[in-house]
This record gives sequence, structure tokens and C-alpha cells, in this order.
Amino acid sequence: MEITERGVCLRGFKAYGVREKGYGLAVILSDRPANSSIMVTSNRVMAAPLLVTIEHAAKGTLLGVVANSGCANAYTGEKGVEDAREMCRAAAAELGIDPETLAVASTGVIGRPLDMPLIKSLIKKTAGSLDESPESSMAAARAIMTTDTKPKSISVKTRLRTGEEVEIGGIAKGAGMIAPKLRPGTAHATMLAFLTTDAYVPQDRIHTILKEAVEQSFNITVIDGDTSTNDLVVLLANGAAGNREVDDSFQEALNFVARELAKMIVKDAEGSTKFFEVRVKGARSGEDASLAAKAIAGSNLVKTALFGGDPNWGRIIAAAGYSGAEFDPENISLQISSKDTTARLIEEGRVLALPGSEELKKAGKVMKAEEIVITLDLRDGGEEATAYGCDLGYGYIKINSEYTS
Amino acid sequence: MEITERGVCLRGFKAYGVREKGYGLAVILSDRPANSSIMVTSNRVMAAPLLVTIEHAAKGTLLGVVANSGCANAYTGEKGVEDAREMCRAAAAELGIDPETLAVASTGVIGRPLDMPLIKSLIKKTAGSLDESPESSMAAARAIMTTDTKPKSISVKTRLRTGEEVEIGGIAKGAGMIAPKLRPGTAHATMLAFLTTDAYVPQDRIHTILKEAVEQSFNITVIDGDTSTNDLVVLLANGAAGNREVDDSFQEALNFVARELAKMIVKDAEGSTKFFEVRVKGARSGEDASLAAKAIAGSNLVKTALFGGDPNWGRIIAAAGYSGAEFDPENISLQISSKDTTARLIEEGRVLALPGSEELKKAGKVMKAEEIVITLDLRDGGEEATAYGCDLGYGYIKINSEYTS
Repeated sequence: MEITERGVCLRGFKAYGVREKGYGLAVILSDRPANSSIMVTSNRVMAAPLLVTIEHAAKGTLLGVVANSGCANAYTGEKGVEDAREMCRAAAAELGIDPETLAVASTGVIGRPLDMPLIKSLIKKTAGSLDESPESSMAAARAIMTTDTKPKSISVKTRLRTGEEVEIGGIAKGAGMIAPKLRPGTAHATMLAFLTTDAYVPQDRIHTILKEAVEQSFNITVIDGDTSTNDLVVLLANGAAGNREVDDSFQEALNFVARELAKMIVKDAEGSTKFFEVRVKGARSGEDASLAAKAIAGSNLVKTALFGGDPNWGRIIAAAGYSGAEFDPENISLQISSKDTTARLIEEGRVLALPGSEELKKAGKVMKAEEIVITLDLRDGGEEATAYGCDLGYGYIKINSEYTS
Repeated sequence: MEITERGVCLRGFKAYGVREKGYGLAVILSDRPANSSIMVTSNRVMAAPLLVTIEHAAKGTLLGVVANSGCANAYTGEKGVEDAREMCRAAAAELGIDPETLAVASTGVIGRPLDMPLIKSLIKKTAGSLDESPESSMAAARAIMTTDTKPKSISVKTRLRTGEEVEIGGIAKGAGMIAPKLRPGTAHATMLAFLTTDAYVPQDRIHTILKEAVEQSFNITVIDGDTSTNDLVVLLANGAAGNREVDDSFQEALNFVARELAKMIVKDAEGSTKFFEVRVKGARSGEDASLAAKAIAGSNLVKTALFGGDPNWGRIIAAAGYSGAEFDPENISLQISSKDTTARLIEEGRVLALPGSEELKKAGKVMKAEEIVITLDLRDGGEEATAYGCDLGYGYIKINSEYTS
């Protein structure tokens, strides 16, 4: 597998995006029907574009995506659904395709109607400039940004066992209201990811393949624990590569693309200065491992300790303790590490990081790093899970107390 | 019911507390065996003193409480349990009672051993100064503070239907790591509340009575969503009032005391500037109502919007949407109010607080108040629930990124 820099603009795909007057608009288009799968937020308050996307995606193939930033078109009632349909119609008219072949997505403030004249003008500009250059993919990635500080894009090339070379690419946005709980046929908030591949992926397997990629990437990221009304992941597989089947190498490459995009989202989290990965292993069940990993990644006290570079490791085990995961606290091992230092805090239930100890000194050093791995071994089974998190600092407060109005 | 100012020092109760070298120590003592009940954290990592308290409380009666701040004695293994027992023994020796008649509690940093020589010296000083004055109750309330900025104390007097006048009082501490999920026989983190009453409360009813009070007070407060390893509520009923039974007026008075202490905790939340109450009504079940109320109270995005005085109400319904509560978003009503203003944001699914509207202007005014009530009517049943929350501002970050080390 090789990392390329084409974003979503792979064989047979075009894209573009523009920003204007607080809105952004992106279009991705395949030159032939693409087998497709979507995952949407599990939030009960689901934004209007997702309702329309679910309907369009039910047919199995799509030609592209039209997405805007600046307004979430969420909690906008029937008018919102009509606006989302109108977005598809306007884009389809410009592109000369059927409106029902488009997925539609929005991100921004909840509870406000879309500015449709602006949307239509942006669609016209975008549709007229579509091409397959990496720069155009980047323009699309930029167009969907809200509080993001940078566009998120990646692509890879891999060779299937049957010999064909295929590419997988993606763009994503998301910086706050992030705790995706994406489920098939529905999406989670203000995290958008559009994935393309020139591989043929059989329609009867594409949902399972996307779900696996999402479960180990977007669904393990926690920024603020607030699951959005607008989260959406779309995978378009247009088959331009001519393969007849996909194998594990495709799944691995797709997982990689999704994971890299998820990491980019967490690393660009609102106001954050640090990225951390929580690895829980030795759990009785995958569910226990996941509960513990997500509780640690989502704990405000762990996150503020990371922001302060404070080795207050008690907060880590307290978070595991209230996570609902089953384990014996007296038997766990805990360590934290940065690129060049590992601090063993607890070893089989015995605290090594006591005040004045060497391990606590090392822990203080680790907590000051920009990338930290927390490893909690529950020593109670063979299951494991990972979660991605970020610190909670003044920047998050600033951005989120001033956003909107 | 009348509010008095005696704290825990009711008929037959003495108390005192001292602070020294980063530790605080409080003792509460009844002059006769008190029927008792406790509730402890549901965190799987339970602090050593709680294990000892559960054991001592199993006998049904207690004589008092010994509690320290400065060190949580949590995740301290067998040594921690031995230290908690030693705290009881040292206090009992000074007081001339059986060590097993004491509840023991700790609050502070996790994962460090108690400074036992300091604890013993503080016990000596405290035990030698016990008396029944309100000032001594306040000294005890002060001794258990950690990041609290003020002591929390209240007492009330009420008359039972059978004619006897009884008093109920309490002291509490807690300012962070607050999302109590107290369960009978176990407690939730770094929220301590010690309740006394001179009423006789039958031992076969005292657990139910305390549970009801805790469920509608401490268990509905959310500061940071981090459930502590050390939370403990103790109720001591020494029967000095001479009543033979308790009725609803006792339960109401106890509920009031617990609720007032819970509100004091939230209002003194680390770095917070605002208090808000979330009332969810019209729910299909109490569980749905409670899930929605707690998700809204605990949402970082709602909390930062409150801090910023920003009427970004979409965050409120997004939180309800991911809470797991069942409801139809298209049918809800939402309003927020301060002392003198009410803003109707959504009415039976229709958004009134559109950009430029009168209601959104009012909402902006409400969000700037110090005490705010959020009322979400799910219009789907007859159940309701309340949660107490506070805003999330720079102060929380400052306190929690610098606490400890």
C-alpha cells in the first residue's frame, strides 16, 4: 500500500468546492454509477439532508455527493427536507444527472433554514469547475470545513491479490460535536467523510466493508462526547479499476484511509493541543474494552490533565471505573507513553507511580508530549479496543462559547 | 418546614473539623446509636474507606463519621483498607467508642497513600473539640472541602403528623468529578454528604427513604460527567426526638435538605459561573426523561454555550437526540427561562427562535442570566425528570489542568 495525494479524485471521479459568505459547497461526481454505502448518525434528531440521502442511497448506486457547510439544515422540519431535495435537484440539473443519484450533506448551526439562493449560486460555480485534479479534491475538502483549521484528505494505492491496482481516497471534516456513533443507513454529527474508490466493490458486501472501516476509525473518536445530528460517511465505489472481487488488502487499505481521516479530525479538534490514543486490552469482551477506552478518551478530567501535562493518572482509572466495563481494578496494569518515554504507572494492581517515584517523574514527561498513548491492560481476557481523544483546553471553551450567534 | 442553621449539630449530635498541611479532618458523633443508611459510588474502582464503611454500616446502626480531605485513599490496595480501618481505630480510641461504629470517608487525589501520622494528629485535635454548636458543624463542613470555594451546610425543622418536631441537617462537599451515580450500599466520586436527623427512622425503611432523597438530588447533578471513586452519602438518625414513626413530611424535608446540598455543590462547581436546571417532561418513561435531562446537563456544547451566553439551542436538542431517550423530535416543545424572561424556542415541533426573531432575542437575554431553567416537553407521555448542571468555562480548565502534582 502506498500513500498518494489525490484525495477523492481517483479514476473516474471529479470534485470541486467553493466558499462564499459563510457557506461552503462541495460536489464529488463519478463518471459512472458507483456501488455505494452510507453510515449516518445515531442521533434521534437527524438532519434533513440525511433523510434524503438515506432514501437516495437505498437504491444501491449513487453518482456523487453535494454537501454544504455554514448551515446544518437540522431541525428544520419539512421545509428542511424540501431544501435538501432542492439542493440535489439544483446540482443534478447543472450536472445533467438524476437528482436521486446524489447523496446530500450539511454541516453548521442547527435550527436554521438553508440560504437556498446562496446554495444554488454556489452549486452553479462548483458544478462548472469540476475536474479530477488533486487541487479540486482539496477545494472540496476546504469547502466543507466549519471550525476545522485545515482540510482533511488522503488517498492510497494498493494491489489486490488478483493483480489489479486500486485506489481509495477520502476527504473529511469535523472538529467539534464529535463522538460519532454511526450506524448503517443513518449518520453522526458534524463529522462528514466522503470516501471514493475506483475498485469494484460488490453491492452485497459494501455495507459490511464500510461498517468495519467506520467501527475502527470514526466511531472510536471522541472530541466532546456530543454526537451530532448531521454525521455522514459515504463510500462510492465506481469500479473503474476493472477488478471483479475485493480481498482483505482492500479492507485494510480502506480501514487505513478511514483511520487516518479520523485521526486528522481528532488532531484538528477545537482548541486542542494534544492527541492521545487509548488502548484497552485484556478485556473480557470487546464491549468492555470499548466502554473503557471511550470513557477514558471522553473524560473531561483526563482531558484537562492532558492539557495541563499533569500525570494525575487516578483520573484514568476512575474513568475506566465508571465506564460500565467489567474488570477487577486490583489486577490491572496501566502505562502511558510518548514517542521516547514509557511510564509504568500500575503493574498488576501495584502502583509504581507513587509520589516521588521515578515512574511518576517519567509520567510527568510523557504528559507533556503532543502525542500520548494510554495503555490499560484489564488482564481479564483477550479482547481489546482503541479510542482516539484530545485534550480539553482554553481553546475549546473559546470556540464553543462564541460559536453561532 | 423551617430552615434552621445548625448543620449536622442537631439534638444528640456533635461535630468538629480542622485543616492543616493540605489535609482536613472532620468528625460527626451521635450520643446514642443511630439507625443509618449509606449510598456509595457505582464506580468499579471504589476507594478503600468506602469498603470499610460498607462493612461497618451493614450492622444497621452507627455512632458517627470520620472523614478527611487531601487524599482520596483510592486505588491504594490492602494498605489503603488497613489505613481506613486505622482511621476508625484512632478516632474511636479518642472518642471511647467501638471503631466499627464509624463510617469513614476520604476525598482528594487518587492513588496516593494517606499520611497517617498527620491523620492521627488531626483526629486528636478534632475529637478533643467536638461540640454541638453550629460553628462546629461548619468547621466540619470546611474540613472536608477540596476545590470547593465554600462550605455546604443546611438544616431544617419540621413537624410530623404525630406531633413531634424533628430536625434534619447535612453538610456536603464536592466541586468536580461530579456525576454521582450513587447506589445503595456503595457511593459516587468526591461528592460527600453527611446527613443527620434527631428523628427515629425505622431501620427497615431508612434505606428506601435515603434512596428516594438521593435519587432526586445528588444523583441528578452533573458537573463534569466524571463519576468519582469516593462518593458517599451517610444518613444518621439518632431518634432523640422521640417519635415512633416517620411520615411523608419527613421524606419531604429530607428530600429538601439533600436537594439544597446538591444545588450548593453544582453552584460551587469548579470554575462555573452559572447554574441551570433541566426539566424534561412529557416523557414515555422516567428513564427516557432522565436520560434526556442528564445528557443536556452534561453536554459540553450546551455548557460552553451557557458560559458564552449564546442561545445556540440546537445543541440542547442534539443532546436530547443522542441521549438514548425515545421521543419524536418533530413534536417537542422547548423553552428556556431566567427569573424574569421566558423564551419559547420550539412549540410542538415548530421553531419559533429563528434568526432575527423576538424569541431568539429573548433567548439571548436568558442565556446571560446566572440561573437558567431549560424545559423540554417531549409531548409523548406523563413522565418527567430534572437534572442540575453548570456551565463550562475557563475556570474549570484552569482548576483541572493544574490540580494535583
